[in-house]
Amino acid sequence: MAASETARIEAFSDGVFAIAITLLVLDLKVPRELGQERTLDRALLAQWPAYIAFLTSFLTILIMWVNHHRMFTLIGRADDRLLFYNGLLLLGVTIVPFPTSLVAEYLRHDGQRTAALVYNGTFILLAICFNLLWRTAAVKDRLLHPHADPVAVRRIFDSYRYGPVWYIVAFGLAFVSVTLSIALNLALAMYFALPGRVRQAA
Amino acid sequence: MAASETARIEAFSDGVFAIAITLLVLDLKVPRELGQERTLDRALLAQWPAYIAFLTSFLTILIMWVNHHRMFTLIGRADDRLLFYNGLLLLGVTIVPFPTSLVAEYLRHDGQRTAALVYNGTFILLAICFNLLWRTAAVKDRLLHPHADPVAVRRIFDSYRYGPVWYIVAFGLAFVSVTLSIALNLALAMYFALPGRVRQAA
Amino acid sequence: MAASETARIEAFSDGVFAIAITLLVLDLKVPRELGQERTLDRALLAQWPAYIAFLTSFLTILIMWVNHHRMFTLIGRADDRLLFYNGLLLLGVTIVPFPTSLVAEYLRHDGQRTAALVYNGTFILLAICFNLLWRTAAVKDRLLHPHADPVAVRRIFDSYRYGPVWYIVAFGLAFVSVTLSIALNLALAMYFALPGRVRQAA
Amino acid sequence: MAASETARIEAFSDGVFAIAITLLVLDLKVPRELGQERTLDRALLAQWPAYIAFLTSFLTILIMWVNHHRMFTLIGRADDRLLFYNGLLLLGVTIVPFPTSLVAEYLRHDGQRTAALVYNGTFILLAICFNLLWRTAAVKDRLLHPHADPVAVRRIFDSYRYGPVWYIVAFGLAFVSVTLSIALNLALAMYFALPGRVRQAA
Repeated sequence: MAASETARIEAFSDGVFAIAITLLVLDLKVPRELGQERTLDRALLAQWPAYIAFLTSFLTILIMWVNHHRMFTLIGRADDRLLFYNGLLLLGVTIVPFPTSLVAEYLRHDGQRTAALVYNGTFILLAICFNLLWRTAAVKDRLLHPHADPVAVRRIFDSYRYGPVWYIVAFGLAFVSVTLSIALNLALAMYFALPGRVRQAA
Repeated sequence: MAASETARIEAFSDGVFAIAITLLVLDLKVPRELGQERTLDRALLAQWPAYIAFLTSFLTILIMWVNHHRMFTLIGRADDRLLFYNGLLLLGVTIVPFPTSLVAEYLRHDGQRTAALVYNGTFILLAICFNLLWRTAAVKDRLLHPHADPVAVRRIFDSYRYGPVWYIVAFGLAFVSVTLSIALNLALAMYFALPGRVRQAA
Repeated sequence: MAASETARIEAFSDGVFAIAITLLVLDLKVPRELGQERTLDRALLAQWPAYIAFLTSFLTILIMWVNHHRMFTLIGRADDRLLFYNGLLLLGVTIVPFPTSLVAEYLRHDGQRTAALVYNGTFILLAICFNLLWRTAAVKDRLLHPHADPVAVRRIFDSYRYGPVWYIVAFGLAFVSVTLSIALNLALAMYFALPGRVRQAA
Repeated sequence: MAASETARIEAFSDGVFAIAITLLVLDLKVPRELGQERTLDRALLAQWPAYIAFLTSFLTILIMWVNHHRMFTLIGRADDRLLFYNGLLLLGVTIVPFPTSLVAEYLRHDGQRTAALVYNGTFILLAICFNLLWRTAAVKDRLLHPHADPVAVRRIFDSYRYGPVWYIVAFGLAFVSVTLSIALNLALAMYFALPGRVRQAA
């Protein structure tokens, strides 16, 4: 496969990222059955868990897109293994709106622990997929661009090594406090999304 | 990052704009529970607020796409700060279908003021994001293309300075009359969408 | 604006066409509340109007994409008027899933005439938008590519002149028989989608 | 039509593939109406058929995208017949979320046979569309790139010949056991998605 092969993989992946990130808005529901007690502004405020879940998932997918993007600036060729792991990663990305809905619906209600565990479990799997995809491309420079900057390559290895750890911590934290677990998810997403840290997070 | 970096940012942003603008159609609901009094044509006419909200949001996202597009013809490089503010802008764009649903559902019903405030609040935030994104790129020519036309650059500065003001007026107007506020939104969208004015609106 | 401007307009338009055509599947509803009388296969067969509406709209959007595509192989430059009429056309394209839902829901029920009129009305508007877009580009060769083939240009003028007429006939036919009107829509879509005729239909 | 024509067909097709694959997530429903007996984790586990259907359809669309992609690296030109069969293939791809919903909803309930037959019927039609598209391009090298590798061309002929057979087997199996039929679908999808076999499956 030629270098242009990578271009088509990136274009297809960009499409999936863009659609998954935009479908998240479907979790923001228009409140119904209002009354004297339940005015529209109260009903809107009452669904704050949906906003937290939306914001966290939006930022997380955005960071994943930035990282995917950065990885592919270093990758020069594609093979079947790369296609497979990239497919696995996209599978994870398209799923994200589902656990986001679970958290939006069940945070502060019975079942919130289950929702938080599924949510963090999805992110752990995504972090593992990123590691597998990167190792497929970069171990022994298998598929890297011949002129790929070794410093940038090393930096990605370093950061991806510790990526899954944070989500395992958030996963474990859900057994102690669901609120803390989701708060850690949001904090991670905001921290990595801030400029200047994006680079290190990649 | 190279100039091609900008190309990928534009492609991803185009995807998000295209999906958000197309998802608006989900706010046009097929009327149910018809009867002798409520024929299909009457039921369709009765949901005119949904058409107003759809049209206003469609034109507004379209104008934002044109402006985003025009900005990036002048921007030559990307850095983390640009990625961050572009991400913030896309966050705003993906949200638009939600306040559009609120207006479609609640205009002419209890809660219409809240709906109009959320709607205009979203547009104010979007206008601020556009300013931040542009200033990140253009102040002291930080990331502009070396051959970017200074007249075009100046024109964007001028127009973006007054962009948020109009939405703040529409926001304030909602306290006086919700109908007037939404009418101003529609008028602004149509005015800026008309050919010959798009250029100045950029 | 340079020729590359056209490339971005095409890319954004392609995105909107692709999303609108794929959202049509949301009109194919999973049947609920089955019973002894109403088995799944009977319930699936009973919603044949939804399949007709889906197929007709799919083919119509596909033909519009082919035509849009063909037009832009001849267009070399863009200006604000072109952007405006292209935006108007995209507005029409994103709306298509809504009248499709109406026909899917109301064909063979009360309100089917209204549904067919809205459906055909949308197609008339789309045909008019295509004419306006093409005339903006091609009258006096305003925005055409300097080497655009005059025969291809003439052929598009000829076919677009009669495009709206067919939809006006289908619109009028709805007052006589809704079934015939929708059947004409489907027949037109299949006729123009068939290879060898696409060219003339452009 | 020039070679760049193929580029636009690929871009539009990529968009449709990306959207159809991402819309599948809408079949993963947030469980409602929980109680003491029906906790969130039990309710989530109880909808395993939805996960099977999601995974199978995701992998199948992904493999179809890889194959579509591979075919177009060998195709050098486009004509109306190619556009027509590609359109037919995309029609099939956009439909996939519908039979996926049917299986997700009805597996292990009354109507599961009908759901499995519609599901496999869709895949048979898709396999036939792939054959027609490929034959349009490759018989007598009609539209192939002048330097297309004859070994790669032969390999695609060989594999597409047997593609529909597997889905016909799965279709027939649904009359014996719906569970076995869906299991074969999943097994096929996983087998062809695994690296090293994708190549042969193409």
